[in-house]
Amino acid sequence: MSIVHPFDQAIALVPQEDGTFQGRFTPAYGNMVGPYGGIITAALLNALPTHTGQQQADPVSLTVNFAAPIADAEYQITVRLMRNNRSTQHWNMELSQNGEVAATATAVLAHRRATWSATEASMPTAPVVESLRSSRMPGAPRWVSSYDMRFVKGEVTLQPDQQTEDSTSLLWVRDEPPRPLDFVALAAMSDCFFPRIFVRRQQLALIGTITLTTYFHADRAALTQQSDKHLLAEAHANRFYNGYFDQGAKLWGADGTLLATSHQLVYFKA
Amino acid sequence: MSIVHPFDQAIALVPQEDGTFQGRFTPAYGNMVGPYGGIITAALLNALPTHTGQQQADPVSLTVNFAAPIADAEYQITVRLMRNNRSTQHWNMELSQNGEVAATATAVLAHRRATWSATEASMPTAPVVESLRSSRMPGAPRWVSSYDMRFVKGEVTLQPDQQTEDSTSLLWVRDEPPRPLDFVALAAMSDCFFPRIFVRRQQLALIGTITLTTYFHADRAALTQQSDKHLLAEAHANRFYNGYFDQGAKLWGADGTLLATSHQLVYFKA
Repeated sequence: MSIVHPFDQAIALVPQEDGTFQGRFTPAYGNMVGPYGGIITAALLNALPTHTGQQQADPVSLTVNFAAPIADAEYQITVRLMRNNRSTQHWNMELSQNGEVAATATAVLAHRRATWSATEASMPTAPVVESLRSSRMPGAPRWVSSYDMRFVKGEVTLQPDQQTEDSTSLLWVRDEPPRPLDFVALAAMSDCFFPRIFVRRQQLALIGTITLTTYFHADRAALTQQSDKHLLAEAHANRFYNGYFDQGAKLWGADGTLLATSHQLVYFKA
Repeated sequence: MSIVHPFDQAIALVPQEDGTFQGRFTPAYGNMVGPYGGIITAALLNALPTHTGQQQADPVSLTVNFAAPIADAEYQITVRLMRNNRSTQHWNMELSQNGEVAATATAVLAHRRATWSATEASMPTAPVVESLRSSRMPGAPRWVSSYDMRFVKGEVTLQPDQQTEDSTSLLWVRDEPPRPLDFVALAAMSDCFFPRIFVRRQQLALIGTITLTTYFHADRAALTQQSDKHLLAEAHANRFYNGYFDQGAKLWGADGTLLATSHQLVYFKA
């Protein structure tokens, strides 16, 4: 018997005769209103081919623009190859519901070659996963329980005495139930942080991600190496200003490899 | 007599009957091969309307994907409004040369409203502009002399003994000749950094920006306030890995306002 992981159910695409893809967001990744942004991001990346001709191509960059409210319902994705160069492919994607564009995206796939390499960012120190409790957030939207999150810092408690001037969060995170890491799961996890304004003010606010960009710093072999272990995930904000704030994130593999960096701009009402 | 600034010459667009725009990159912003990425970015942003109906809309986010080599020559830009919501407009743009797409872009314009606001990032300390010499780089591409750059840290000297394990740069920068800051100039300046790999290794390498995302954290009033003073600009890298590295940047106004943050992914051969 083979059981499909809820993540794969939520991003499963059915190719249509006209070259588009059809899918359906599932309750397991529901957010306050509509689906979790990470699952929308993963569905868009999932629509791209993982091979071009004989060559394997890995995503190096992905930007998703959330243009309109999205429902926990059927969606259509169209993809368009904008340019195909020797080492990179540039793609545009659109996600529609009821015939209207709700999200647009661009992605760059690349054939990596071995080169001089170096990491300048430092992995934050954190207690071992096993020493931390799994976060339990009664009343949180469904997508939260599709991850195992173990906070080192910057949890949303909604306790006024936990308000802070540094909204940085640090947590260990993996899919729940565990699932071997791949690029679509990593793309989804780049959005696994609560909005920085919730951490900063320890109160809820009306928010919505406007745009999300993820850079992948690792190849397929590094993700295979990571498998279903927890990633160390860090997120911070630079500025909240008149309705918009940014969030920057780093995702580290269990062995200290920087797997991805990600940035988003978020609308807020406060 | 009215003199047009070289920056405005380089991004000037002529509306065509079919709704597209035509422009021509100028030698003043030439790079090693083709135009400076910042001027391409500015031209794309310049194609968007600054008003929607009666309301002024400011850019909050801009992503440019550099899909193919671009020449110091004529270009066409097409823009398409993907969604128009109450507070935001989502745009797609394409820049073509000789009928082929060379760059794609997405932008979000927004009507900002006064809200609770806070800045978490700290402006780095730096000597006053007047105490630093303007950088002179013989042999540098033309766009470099279209800026006045005064380095505090992380200049490209090509001296092997200046190699470093921290490729961070910090500099004061403004348009040369001086020009009052606006969103298109700020978008261009978000690419005003030498490639991190040049700083790190103090040697040239074949490089090309693949994708650039800028978040604007300020409104028009803050840019007017900044006028033609120097901005404090900081750039760093997180990881160089098998042909690609990222660069993160912050641009601060002279009065300490965080005006923009920016991220790019760069192809390299080394």
